[in-house]
Amino acid sequence: MLKVGLLGAGRIGQVHAVNISGHERSTLVAVSDVNTAAADALATKYSAKSCSSDEILADSSIDAVLVATSTDTHSDLIEAATAAGKAVLCEKPVDLSLARAKECLAKAQATGIPVMIGFNRRFDPNFAAVKVAAETGEIGKSELLSVTSFDPAPPPVSYIKVSGGLFRDMMIHDFDMANFLMGAVPQEVSAVGSSIVDPAIGEVGDFDTAIVTMRYADGRLAVIRNSRRAVYGYDQRVELLGSEGLLSADNVLENTVSKATTAGVTSAKPEFFFLERYMRAYAAEWTAFVEAVVANSPVPVTLEDGISALALAEAATESARTGKPVTVSH
Amino acid sequence: MLKVGLLGAGRIGQVHAVNISGHERSTLVAVSDVNTAAADALATKYSAKSCSSDEILADSSIDAVLVATSTDTHSDLIEAATAAGKAVLCEKPVDLSLARAKECLAKAQATGIPVMIGFNRRFDPNFAAVKVAAETGEIGKSELLSVTSFDPAPPPVSYIKVSGGLFRDMMIHDFDMANFLMGAVPQEVSAVGSSIVDPAIGEVGDFDTAIVTMRYADGRLAVIRNSRRAVYGYDQRVELLGSEGLLSADNVLENTVSKATTAGVTSAKPEFFFLERYMRAYAAEWTAFVEAVVANSPVPVTLEDGISALALAEAATESARTGKPVTVSH
Amino acid sequence: MLKVGLLGAGRIGQVHAVNISGHERSTLVAVSDVNTAAADALATKYSAKSCSSDEILADSSIDAVLVATSTDTHSDLIEAATAAGKAVLCEKPVDLSLARAKECLAKAQATGIPVMIGFNRRFDPNFAAVKVAAETGEIGKSELLSVTSFDPAPPPVSYIKVSGGLFRDMMIHDFDMANFLMGAVPQEVSAVGSSIVDPAIGEVGDFDTAIVTMRYADGRLAVIRNSRRAVYGYDQRVELLGSEGLLSADNVLENTVSKATTAGVTSAKPEFFFLERYMRAYAAEWTAFVEAVVANSPVPVTLEDGISALALAEAATESARTGKPVTVSH
Amino acid sequence: MLKVGLLGAGRIGQVHAVNISGHERSTLVAVSDVNTAAADALATKYSAKSCSSDEILADSSIDAVLVATSTDTHSDLIEAATAAGKAVLCEKPVDLSLARAKECLAKAQATGIPVMIGFNRRFDPNFAAVKVAAETGEIGKSELLSVTSFDPAPPPVSYIKVSGGLFRDMMIHDFDMANFLMGAVPQEVSAVGSSIVDPAIGEVGDFDTAIVTMRYADGRLAVIRNSRRAVYGYDQRVELLGSEGLLSADNVLENTVSKATTAGVTSAKPEFFFLERYMRAYAAEWTAFVEAVVANSPVPVTLEDGISALALAEAATESARTGKPVTVSH
Repeated sequence: MLKVGLLGAGRIGQVHAVNISGHERSTLVAVSDVNTAAADALATKYSAKSCSSDEILADSSIDAVLVATSTDTHSDLIEAATAAGKAVLCEKPVDLSLARAKECLAKAQATGIPVMIGFNRRFDPNFAAVKVAAETGEIGKSELLSVTSFDPAPPPVSYIKVSGGLFRDMMIHDFDMANFLMGAVPQEVSAVGSSIVDPAIGEVGDFDTAIVTMRYADGRLAVIRNSRRAVYGYDQRVELLGSEGLLSADNVLENTVSKATTAGVTSAKPEFFFLERYMRAYAAEWTAFVEAVVANSPVPVTLEDGISALALAEAATESARTGKPVTVSH
Repeated sequence: MLKVGLLGAGRIGQVHAVNISGHERSTLVAVSDVNTAAADALATKYSAKSCSSDEILADSSIDAVLVATSTDTHSDLIEAATAAGKAVLCEKPVDLSLARAKECLAKAQATGIPVMIGFNRRFDPNFAAVKVAAETGEIGKSELLSVTSFDPAPPPVSYIKVSGGLFRDMMIHDFDMANFLMGAVPQEVSAVGSSIVDPAIGEVGDFDTAIVTMRYADGRLAVIRNSRRAVYGYDQRVELLGSEGLLSADNVLENTVSKATTAGVTSAKPEFFFLERYMRAYAAEWTAFVEAVVANSPVPVTLEDGISALALAEAATESARTGKPVTVSH
Repeated sequence: MLKVGLLGAGRIGQVHAVNISGHERSTLVAVSDVNTAAADALATKYSAKSCSSDEILADSSIDAVLVATSTDTHSDLIEAATAAGKAVLCEKPVDLSLARAKECLAKAQATGIPVMIGFNRRFDPNFAAVKVAAETGEIGKSELLSVTSFDPAPPPVSYIKVSGGLFRDMMIHDFDMANFLMGAVPQEVSAVGSSIVDPAIGEVGDFDTAIVTMRYADGRLAVIRNSRRAVYGYDQRVELLGSEGLLSADNVLENTVSKATTAGVTSAKPEFFFLERYMRAYAAEWTAFVEAVVANSPVPVTLEDGISALALAEAATESARTGKPVTVSH
Repeated sequence: MLKVGLLGAGRIGQVHAVNISGHERSTLVAVSDVNTAAADALATKYSAKSCSSDEILADSSIDAVLVATSTDTHSDLIEAATAAGKAVLCEKPVDLSLARAKECLAKAQATGIPVMIGFNRRFDPNFAAVKVAAETGEIGKSELLSVTSFDPAPPPVSYIKVSGGLFRDMMIHDFDMANFLMGAVPQEVSAVGSSIVDPAIGEVGDFDTAIVTMRYADGRLAVIRNSRRAVYGYDQRVELLGSEGLLSADNVLENTVSKATTAGVTSAKPEFFFLERYMRAYAAEWTAFVEAVVANSPVPVTLEDGISALALAEAATESARTGKPVTVSH
């Protein structure tokens, strides 16, 4: 039984707590949060102890930690946890600074302790099915990938300011999805952005709507579309065109009911946001982490994967600013 | 080039005129109608002559007639036309009286002249694809057929009174669809009806909503649902469950556009009524008739098919009245 | 916190255990099963005690029991549990004998203890949404209900023999769905059945394919289609036609991926069977039970509901045997 | 009755002949083609005369011409026909040279004779419905347009060589669709292309797969995806994201039949290519031309529209070559 400490008792920490506790091979033993009341409440519910993150890292009975704290603490916690010999599942992104993330990678790698990055979408059953179908050659050779990722509503500008920008905060998921589905990192990134949803987002130097095109060494192409606002819900789709067909993963809808009247046929909207849409993905992600750690096999999403996605986000940020394609160095 | 006389210049006659005239191997040479102004207008448009039906039948240059007159004239016109040696495509139903239809069959058969009944739905590309898939064994052995047929709005009660009733007027199409898709006629028919859409329909002794179940000699089952009112449009579907799968033919929608908003996702309604939905079917039906006549091969929907459907309509009418299943004699 | 004893540790008992244990207001304290090893295993996993059902009923610290034992024990356990003052959630059906079920109702009612019957499909988010839409008048007045319920594969004939027959064992869910969605019980039931899937099922006097039509006092109609075999998965749909539109609840698919190739566009099948399809429904059902018991408000599915569905199953069984419609007395 | 001369009796000329002849207010009186046998055959079928294009332009009884000849003759024929006072409907593109097209515009405009360019997709009922919905504000203010346009199979390299390249030959339709749906021309165009489908296409300096992003003066964005090969059929879709929702026009499928088996649920492919998909659009386009000419009102797609699309194609060609965004001058 894997004994797990949870660092961070916020919204996403609570989702992870359910999965840690519900999994047959893991148990939640400790919770920390800068908001100690939140840590206490979560710890009580799962009969775990509430303590500081330092205490968790110092507790030799704890096998693994799940890092669900604010982004600026990720690198430090990954380093400290691996130094303490604890397997790590850390929420994305690794860091807002590519340089800092690479430093973290070097230190973590030196310990030999497994670190997995929480790119939850790889574990969505729909996207995972696209991956399997593509890899088994069901559409021949892949040629053109399209990733659509629209949030239901923009976050407050106060969040935008500290987010690292659209490409690092939001599109980083889509960069990882592209890396995942294409099985390669692109050579060149071109970005175009706009702040048409909310001019205030533009005033703090960020975009709310963006398109990124990417070219791979073998001539394949990809395009990612992001918008901070799709009022009908969380729009999360991929399409992969290949030499022998097209794979499409469509949205998960709230229900399967339709109503036909004189006004047309109305059906349900996509699941509203990431907690609804990716509930099954979070559980599958946790299972994958536990299985890898228990079996001492490689984790399915590595710290390097986190850095690859971050490198693309940096390149896109530069391209959107300069108006020129950016070559990505790996 | 098949020279064709059109008997009946009403709404459905006009649809047929387009197809007769547009087909590469047929031409419209004469039109008749009790409303001579309607016949004149249609004849002018297609450079045909406007005359009486007697004149059409007497015109030895005419090879074939399309009968699109009122139902009470069908049997007489089939008999007269075949006696005059003209191939016949006659709108459904053959007659409201099964006895009269059988008499007509005997006379027409004696002439050896081809008579095809206009069960247009057999030529709908969707239902036709179900037929082909079923016959080629794509779902193994068929077991349970479901036919859905809802009109967008009920006709006036004045029409209901002379229609022969729901089963002969409306469901007769669905009986033929069942005969077509099952490749057999059922042994037993059970009907339940209601006049819940419009009580006035019940007051003249008819139903506006009905369900018919049918059992075949080999144990297969079928169900037909009819309603005179589906406010969202003409609802025309079939489902065929077999030992190895399910075939479904869904509605044809007005367009492929959907709109996602906070209110849900709205898409187009089914094509409104039979002229829209079955436009392609009418053209395919005419092509099938021309090809059979020109090649001197059997027509794909026979007068016997018209009588089989009528026999089922009579059985259903009796079952709905008595509340008991009715055995069908063939 | 509601302390719960689980009677029955089989497949469905295990599903309930997850929900009992995971719910914030209930906890699993005891498990019994005639297979004591199964009870032990489940009890261990959830830190509950493994004991006999008699011990559970005699344990005054237990507030409620979930009955997931074989059907022939349901009536006895409902009576014993209510006599012991324990709220009951009992799997369907109440009993295979309508008379016995009514006797059970009388005894249970005398105690005043709440008894809820596990018609899980009422809690499926899709069917529940149809219910809400129908009740709020979104399609005007309901007129014609259609329930489709096909299992992926027939059970062994050994099970068929003791099942009570298709109508009591399988269609009982659909009778309850009709009662639920129509908000009334029908006056008359007509059934037609066949054993076309597996003749061995016919040899033991049962059907594997059946259609039931029902007529309500106000003229509304309903039809239920059952098949023991739909090789593509568990086919669970409803359609409700009303004066102002149509509500449809479609299947829940395994995923949202489609693949377009020269062979056509292939998408996922329906969730395979009831555990997959109704996983969310079971959780919602448990929540509804806990909320009613804790709030001392009426349970949403009563023992009377169980008896109504059973009465329809008896009527359908008789109709299928005699070939005549059966009037239902309530 | 509009008397029409058809210049060009090839595949697309034959489609137009059906519409010219079938329309109630137009008649086909003359056909020309460099392949005189093709012209003769078409003329015979419609009782028109077969002659040279010069004879058609010199025939004072002819009111309008439809230009369906090879692209390199379009500018000359538009100039000659307008000089001869004949209304023109000319297939796209106006010319492969933007300079030549502008010259043609100047000459044609000087005559005051209406010239319409055959961007048939504007008349597709699906895209037309998106346009209407967008213009009536059904999704608020538009923000992000996506156009997908994949051909079923690449043309021979011999055609590619004289085609003007992917952007002028194929994507020009999509540039016009963007101009149509956005109601504006973009300021900046960025293109990325690849010859991954067929390296031989790359060897002659063209692309077979491309993505173009466009930015509008008001901050709106658009993306166009093109591939010369989608083996499952002609993939023609648009999506328009707005402040209050998303409009999507999906493919038109060959039929509405689906088949569910153990292998999944298979449905029909998109209509195979442009003749099938845009059959209704060609008829609606002709109707729009006839109505404008007869009413002496502006044609709905002008020569300027043709030039705008061509300017975008030139900009995209340059961007794909240089790897830099190109500012579009209008």
